[in-house]
Amino acid sequence: MSSFMRKEYDSIEPYTPGEQLNDKKYIKLNTNESPFPASPKVLEALNTNLISSLRLYSDPKLKKIKEAIADFYDVTPEQIFVGNGSDDVIAFAFMAFGGLGGEFCCPDITYSFYPVFADLFKVNLEQIPLKDDFSIDVNDYIGKNKNIIIANPNAPTGLALTHEEIELIVKTNPHNVVIIDEAYVDFAENTSVVDLVNQYENLMVTQTFSKSRSLAGLRVGFSVSSKALTDDLEKLKYSFNPYNVNTLSIEAATAAISDRKYYEKTIAETVKIREFTKEELIKRGFTVTDSKTNFVFAKTDKIPSSELYEELRNRGILIRYFNAPRISEYFRMSMGTTEQMKKVIEVIDEIIKERE
Amino acid sequence: MSSFMRKEYDSIEPYTPGEQLNDKKYIKLNTNESPFPASPKVLEALNTNLISSLRLYSDPKLKKIKEAIADFYDVTPEQIFVGNGSDDVIAFAFMAFGGLGGEFCCPDITYSFYPVFADLFKVNLEQIPLKDDFSIDVNDYIGKNKNIIIANPNAPTGLALTHEEIELIVKTNPHNVVIIDEAYVDFAENTSVVDLVNQYENLMVTQTFSKSRSLAGLRVGFSVSSKALTDDLEKLKYSFNPYNVNTLSIEAATAAISDRKYYEKTIAETVKIREFTKEELIKRGFTVTDSKTNFVFAKTDKIPSSELYEELRNRGILIRYFNAPRISEYFRMSMGTTEQMKKVIEVIDEIIKERE
Repeated sequence: MSSFMRKEYDSIEPYTPGEQLNDKKYIKLNTNESPFPASPKVLEALNTNLISSLRLYSDPKLKKIKEAIADFYDVTPEQIFVGNGSDDVIAFAFMAFGGLGGEFCCPDITYSFYPVFADLFKVNLEQIPLKDDFSIDVNDYIGKNKNIIIANPNAPTGLALTHEEIELIVKTNPHNVVIIDEAYVDFAENTSVVDLVNQYENLMVTQTFSKSRSLAGLRVGFSVSSKALTDDLEKLKYSFNPYNVNTLSIEAATAAISDRKYYEKTIAETVKIREFTKEELIKRGFTVTDSKTNFVFAKTDKIPSSELYEELRNRGILIRYFNAPRISEYFRMSMGTTEQMKKVIEVIDEIIKERE
Repeated sequence: MSSFMRKEYDSIEPYTPGEQLNDKKYIKLNTNESPFPASPKVLEALNTNLISSLRLYSDPKLKKIKEAIADFYDVTPEQIFVGNGSDDVIAFAFMAFGGLGGEFCCPDITYSFYPVFADLFKVNLEQIPLKDDFSIDVNDYIGKNKNIIIANPNAPTGLALTHEEIELIVKTNPHNVVIIDEAYVDFAENTSVVDLVNQYENLMVTQTFSKSRSLAGLRVGFSVSSKALTDDLEKLKYSFNPYNVNTLSIEAATAAISDRKYYEKTIAETVKIREFTKEELIKRGFTVTDSKTNFVFAKTDKIPSSELYEELRNRGILIRYFNAPRISEYFRMSMGTTEQMKKVIEVIDEIIKERE
């Protein structure tokens, strides 16, 4: 930090994004991107006419994309906040509801960005231990009397609370905001609580175009909530960066969310690949969580995950390994195509065989 | 605000973007966009291959665009911070150097977003009155002992301090950051102080692709400074939104800044149109500031600017009028094409004639 930087930022440990290696061509299974390209409608949307219009500012009200999202989830556009990625949305939420001394809580093992947001905006964050099997104990969150953020399904564990369990948490914390980060929910049938936003004013659901919509490079995320909570985020956005989503992102994301058929097809395919991969790993004696996401979370006693990570990387396959308490025995592997996953299983067999 | 929002935001007045009216086809001269499309190289860059790669995350390090900007300004990539528009960059700068009780100062008449940033991040902002002729009194900023932000050229006045005057301010405030917001500097020959960033560790220059690069809808802005100041902003970015610039913006902006010839041509054309417009207004007895930007700032005693704004709007021409102390007699008009500006002058003549 320079001598000019405010001292209050001394203690912040910034978030570390997953590796983006370019030294050779990898099977890239380390940052939970989709193996499928975005809907063909995205390509149609990003046409010459649109590009010629870039001399003009984007619409700060984000009318078109809000209408498309609202239509998909059967809510009103006033209940939608759109950000430059869902990190942007969650950052504004921490700032709005927890800034300068407010209280939030979340599981101790979850998306590692939450504690960073808390540090940045001076939020008191309680990190509540998961159970030994990595599941969330719902009782820890009932009548908690703090704002709550839960990734559901959770990362990197892949485990999901049920719709009923989430509703219980929301219902018993009426005076606090409950944020459900549903980045991976499209891969977990019957889990999303978007349908509850009209019933509970304190519920905010966040989602992203980065996973199930195959648009990680486009940076679009959003929340669905009561109009009151949306208005709070809008106030901060108009005080920070009113044009936070650009013209190309607006049009591409609108095209993507309007193509429901392609979305359903790629999700079904991803879930099939995930179940196949889980089975293959279980056959080989791996411990595998019941992931409801587009990745698996697993370990084996045949090779430490840190070494498996290295060995796979040497063979052109990137997975993620977390050198962190309680989860350092595990690895996280995003789902590629069926062909890629068959190849990965083969390579894992080779690596383990070499050690026998 | 909802009952969940932190009370500290009660008093914030969010920024109001310029009107984006769509009820009919306007000659749009109200938000300082370029009348020219972006470089043809932008269209080439946004090709099918690139769009197919959107399933992958964008590069959080922004290597490619940083290298292109560094190359243009003859500095190193480590001296470049890139944001989602220059509002994003300036927001991070207010947060980094002024957050929670730090001190900034700026002119009282300037980009109206600065006081909003100050409110949001709890920065004490001193607003120093411009002189009666709307110029900045350099003496007000010498050895000020506070962080300083100055738009140069200033908006909406269009007036610029000289390179020497800015250097004097930077040099006499070595213990504070001096931010020069050069959004319009490409239209003001010999005014930019980018060449001083290696000499003064406390100098940060911000620029944007929204004006001279014809890419307002793309949301890309950047700063050039010492590596130390860049690192400070990077720390905040990695604690807020690491993937703040998307893949399409990276590629399009890189293409735009690499096309120096097109950039020089469109700037020369804009300056020609500005000088033509100023002369035409002066011929008609208007008071016109010596704008060094892509807009003119003017008034006439033949019709109040608020009414001129209304009359032009009724005739399909949008300009900007500020209902604010000291400048409410003036209007601000962005430069369109030569044809558009000839038409606008004609219409102004008609409006004034009708009143005689």
